[in-house]
Amino acid sequence: MSQKQKNRTTVDIYGTQYVIVGTESTSHIRLVASLVDEKMREISSMNPSLDKSKLAVLTAVNTLHDNLKLKEYCESLEEELKKLKD
Amino acid sequence: MSQKQKNRTTVDIYGTQYVIVGTESTSHIRLVASLVDEKMREISSMNPSLDKSKLAVLTAVNTLHDNLKLKEYCESLEEELKKLKD
Repeated sequence: MSQKQKNRTTVDIYGTQYVIVGTESTSHIRLVASLVDEKMREISSMNPSLDKSKLAVLTAVNTLHDNLKLKEYCESLEEELKKLKD
Repeated sequence: MSQKQKNRTTVDIYGTQYVIVGTESTSHIRLVASLVDEKMREISSMNPSLDKSKLAVLTAVNTLHDNLKLKEYCESLEEELKKLKD
């Protein structure tokens, strides 16, 4: 059985380095890291008094909210597709 | 011009309380918070030495990765729909 190769990628997010291990490409991991960094800076600029831990939690909250909205959108597309195929 | 009403919801994520302000319903905000809390606990169980700030950043990374995958999936569905409608 073949296994996907695991990559180790070092990224900088909001001034801290992280080693991310996964089967995704280094470019994908870098993209994800840069988007998290960007979102943290955006939330921080609106709430300058937040400490890093709270800032990161609120970034995760914000991203998970986007995620649920995307899931709803995917489901509506699936529904539409199903109707067209039936 | 009417404006959507803003709700203030207090949630507990990984032992810290956050007041989330937004136009989303309280139940949606509570769901998002519980999913972030769950993901943080899952990542923490695999990496018990991580401090809270790093744990939260990695939760955001994980969620944003899911987000990009969902976007790709939505795009593929949109493409399929477009073909069926043409």
